[in-house]
Amino acid sequence: MGKVLKGRSGRRRGAPDTKGEILAAARAVFGERGYDGATMRAIAAAAFVDPALVHHYFGSKEKLFLAAMEIPWDPSVIADAIADHTADAGIGERAIRTFIGVWGDPVGRAPILALLRSAMQHEAAARLLRQFVTRAILGRVLAAFQDVPNGALRAEAMVSHLIGLAIVRYVVKLEPIASVPDEELVALVAPVLQQYYDGALE
Amino acid sequence: MGKVLKGRSGRRRGAPDTKGEILAAARAVFGERGYDGATMRAIAAAAFVDPALVHHYFGSKEKLFLAAMEIPWDPSVIADAIADHTADAGIGERAIRTFIGVWGDPVGRAPILALLRSAMQHEAAARLLRQFVTRAILGRVLAAFQDVPNGALRAEAMVSHLIGLAIVRYVVKLEPIASVPDEELVALVAPVLQQYYDGALE
Repeated sequence: MGKVLKGRSGRRRGAPDTKGEILAAARAVFGERGYDGATMRAIAAAAFVDPALVHHYFGSKEKLFLAAMEIPWDPSVIADAIADHTADAGIGERAIRTFIGVWGDPVGRAPILALLRSAMQHEAAARLLRQFVTRAILGRVLAAFQDVPNGALRAEAMVSHLIGLAIVRYVVKLEPIASVPDEELVALVAPVLQQYYDGALE
Repeated sequence: MGKVLKGRSGRRRGAPDTKGEILAAARAVFGERGYDGATMRAIAAAAFVDPALVHHYFGSKEKLFLAAMEIPWDPSVIADAIADHTADAGIGERAIRTFIGVWGDPVGRAPILALLRSAMQHEAAARLLRQFVTRAILGRVLAAFQDVPNGALRAEAMVSHLIGLAIVRYVVKLEPIASVPDEELVALVAPVLQQYYDGALE
């Protein structure tokens, strides 16, 4: 199920202290200003380095965020897997399979669970998670919902079901849903999620 | 939407210190032993009072738990509202309306949010929430699912969707779902939840 997880091949090239300082500065600036408010320039300033170095090491704000939060999967790969209209499976099945790929792996779920925990404790962390999910995941998934009335609302309802499922299956571990095999979970949840895409609003 | 909330009329009758000590002992014993493992007798022993006094003040373990956790709604009322076969609305609509009644009220959601936060931090708290939800809510809702194949699994999938919705709408506050009026939320979510009751497993 690790398809969406990137390689976990440890050490990066380059001066480790500088990179570590940029990552620490990024965590502080993202925490204070949120995802939307944080800029590469402000993070560079907080790390006392040239912005060009931050771009050189991390490429984009999204990639810097993923590195700072130690998120081992790529939200664009996830969003594209969900939004892919050319796939044989419907969007409900694609969403639940992608979800299991991330949350079913303890390494994949740890950082997003940490973000979710913080978001439930502090409004600043809630804002950070809200903005990251909106920009990095929902913004891309919405491409699949563009011809659907109330697409944003339906996409978020789908995401909310997956978040609840994550908590009940992997954190609270309510039985029998905590132990049901992945394929049974797909069979149960996929057609229900699909309703958010196909179903008419009452 | 406060129908499921009990009266919030302050002070209880009886010796306030003894009751307070029983409640503090209850929180400690529930935290250590979980919902299933805690007994009225053990709580009485921890509070240095006679078990008969605990029964006299609180009546049942469930009522003692609700008082100790300051939960202002009655799980049996909630479960019955969801499970009520004689209602005009389907189970999906009854579930989302009951959910909005509890979570839409800051006083109603505070204690269950506190339980959920703890459950996401500590395994002992996760066990407590798991056992409480299983005994006090799912056990009763299952009555409505008794003729449905995989009823427990479907009921839990429904509950997981509602928990995720709570987090996304009331905690992380993702827009537009955080601001959509209650009736639009019912129209969006009710038919999807209903699928867990009516829909065939693929």
